[in-house]
Amino acid sequence: MIRVEGGVTAPLGFLASGVSCGIKRRGKDMALLLSEKTAVVAGTLTRNAVRASCVNWVQAALQRGVARALVANSGNANSCTGRRGEKNTAEMARLASSELGLIPSQVLVASTGVIGHFLPMDRVRTGIQEASMSLSRTGSLSAAEAILTTDTRPKELAVRFRVAGHPITIGGIAKGSGMVSPHLATLLAFLTTDANIELAALRGAVRAAVGESFNAITVDGEMSTNDMVLVLANGACEGPVIRRGSAPYRKFLKALITVSRFLAHEIVRDGEGVTRLLAVYVTGAKNKESAAKVARQVAQSLLVKTMVAGRDPNWGRVAAAVGASCVSLNMDKLTIRLGKTVVFRKGEPTSPGHEKLLNAVDQPEVQVGIDLGGGTHHAQILSGDLTEGYVRINAKYTT
Amino acid sequence: MIRVEGGVTAPLGFLASGVSCGIKRRGKDMALLLSEKTAVVAGTLTRNAVRASCVNWVQAALQRGVARALVANSGNANSCTGRRGEKNTAEMARLASSELGLIPSQVLVASTGVIGHFLPMDRVRTGIQEASMSLSRTGSLSAAEAILTTDTRPKELAVRFRVAGHPITIGGIAKGSGMVSPHLATLLAFLTTDANIELAALRGAVRAAVGESFNAITVDGEMSTNDMVLVLANGACEGPVIRRGSAPYRKFLKALITVSRFLAHEIVRDGEGVTRLLAVYVTGAKNKESAAKVARQVAQSLLVKTMVAGRDPNWGRVAAAVGASCVSLNMDKLTIRLGKTVVFRKGEPTSPGHEKLLNAVDQPEVQVGIDLGGGTHHAQILSGDLTEGYVRINAKYTT
Repeated sequence: MIRVEGGVTAPLGFLASGVSCGIKRRGKDMALLLSEKTAVVAGTLTRNAVRASCVNWVQAALQRGVARALVANSGNANSCTGRRGEKNTAEMARLASSELGLIPSQVLVASTGVIGHFLPMDRVRTGIQEASMSLSRTGSLSAAEAILTTDTRPKELAVRFRVAGHPITIGGIAKGSGMVSPHLATLLAFLTTDANIELAALRGAVRAAVGESFNAITVDGEMSTNDMVLVLANGACEGPVIRRGSAPYRKFLKALITVSRFLAHEIVRDGEGVTRLLAVYVTGAKNKESAAKVARQVAQSLLVKTMVAGRDPNWGRVAAAVGASCVSLNMDKLTIRLGKTVVFRKGEPTSPGHEKLLNAVDQPEVQVGIDLGGGTHHAQILSGDLTEGYVRINAKYTT
Repeated sequence: MIRVEGGVTAPLGFLASGVSCGIKRRGKDMALLLSEKTAVVAGTLTRNAVRASCVNWVQAALQRGVARALVANSGNANSCTGRRGEKNTAEMARLASSELGLIPSQVLVASTGVIGHFLPMDRVRTGIQEASMSLSRTGSLSAAEAILTTDTRPKELAVRFRVAGHPITIGGIAKGSGMVSPHLATLLAFLTTDANIELAALRGAVRAAVGESFNAITVDGEMSTNDMVLVLANGACEGPVIRRGSAPYRKFLKALITVSRFLAHEIVRDGEGVTRLLAVYVTGAKNKESAAKVARQVAQSLLVKTMVAGRDPNWGRVAAAVGASCVSLNMDKLTIRLGKTVVFRKGEPTSPGHEKLLNAVDQPEVQVGIDLGGGTHHAQILSGDLTEGYVRINAKYTT
């Protein structure tokens, strides 16, 4: 597997664009993605009970499992906007389909930004028209820019591997920044591939890849009303069909995980106010759920996150967060590490000395290891520190 | 019911003191409370699976239901300190009991501060000796000061009411500041009363009062390893015995709730970095649990809390938090208010105009109302804003 340029337009048969139409105060805010052939599509959607109408629209498309295009705007989530919001979602699909010579149901729709405001449809209309005229084989970066909100940089990656001599490419773009939390697919990520893969196999691969990437990160524990991970596979590589469980499937899954993980980690690195990463590793859990629960509690703890921000080796906060996860716990079997330094073992602090502790937290990525000593299951989550920057960004979002 | 001076020493037969013995860098850090008669005692303890040994010590005392004294230090939580920590807790009780002519099991023990460090027992010994010599009928404020950590001010209140002509007094002191979250009794609060109340009645009253006070607040969603609410009743008023369900019981409960609520709200007002309050009211829930779940999700949402900090009427974040609570939801029946202004009703934003919205969030206490429209149950939680001050305090706690 090699890394290639081109993001979502690196795979054969995909065009993309991103333009500015004035939904945001500045910057690109309308992205378009077109597959020259009908693509199978799979994805995961936010589990928030308050869902934007575009999430419902995409859910119907995911049930059909096919799509040709995706239109996405930033700057306005079109969420909590009732019937008028539903009409506006359908209108976005209709406008894009008429520009592209498709029918509306072939067009996926995504929105991200402020909640509770009606979309400025005159600008949306202009944006979709301009985006369709700008579609190109090198448009991935523009599309990646057009889906950003408080993100400071676009996120894209593409990789290539071979199945029976045929090169297959997977590309992706994503946005994140705030309202990012594990197990919820809370962000926008759009991936494309020219793999010739069965719908059922694609669905399985997406589920597996999301679990190890977008669902294993957290920025602020918040769950958005709009977020989705979508993967379109158009078969343009003209290789043999990839079926679930086969050797080519495993290769495909590995590449999909690579792209998904890269984008997910980029989201944390570019998280609102994040200056340093917090990687939480949990081992020795009696089941997968306990492992994930402990990892999440620690990774989301404001006190652990501020500890990382301040390079303060106050590991007692890690212990408190482990206990707060409500997982049954034997303190005598619990081990806690900061970096490679054991700070708590067999019910006692190890008191390794202040210099070693300071060194463990004075890292661009602070590693926190928790061994529960009660089983063989594990989990890991990537998070970031909580800084005054996060508060500054979010205290004045709409005003 | 009238408010009286004197805090925990306002009720008859209680002495208190607070001294400085060098556990903290500065300020008082050892508190002592003595009842001249044996008191019945009831309380609630942290639900964190990682518990300091003092929590276990107090749990045993609560099972017996009687106590004579309480010793509490700040600056060191004596948590995650294993066998040596257990011995130190027992030693604190032994030292206090020998100074006061009691047996160790009559002494309750509490600690608060940094986790994972051994108590400096030489200082603790001196502190307990000095505190026992300083015990006085006017020592409540000193005791209130000696249990503080990052709190900026002591918290105390006392009220008096009459039952069958007998004046009964309830007093209390508390500390909070960080690691404060609902449904967990995450703080230290010590209340005293000279009421002559049965143990079973006291236990019922404490459970009810805590539910409406200390368990209905949140600062940062964190759960501490040490926290407890304890109420000692010594019967020194010499009034008739208060039994559960009686009219005097209801009067007692009302007064207990008054003191508990005042202390709980003081904890939020003095929460780390808190500049403005966030009061969340949930109505129309189909059961008590759903109401509490929604209230907690909104009150703990970082995005809602930063919105309050920034006076930003970005109510979509409230909607997203309601949805994230995973309570089943009918959007068409959901109503959201900021202050008295309805911002969302019948599935649509009401667009009340920017000035009204700004006014609703430009308040010292921002009120968020959520009517789920699906039942008759309700809940409320008091929280505070999330500011750069919180991050500053917690990024450099031990270093």
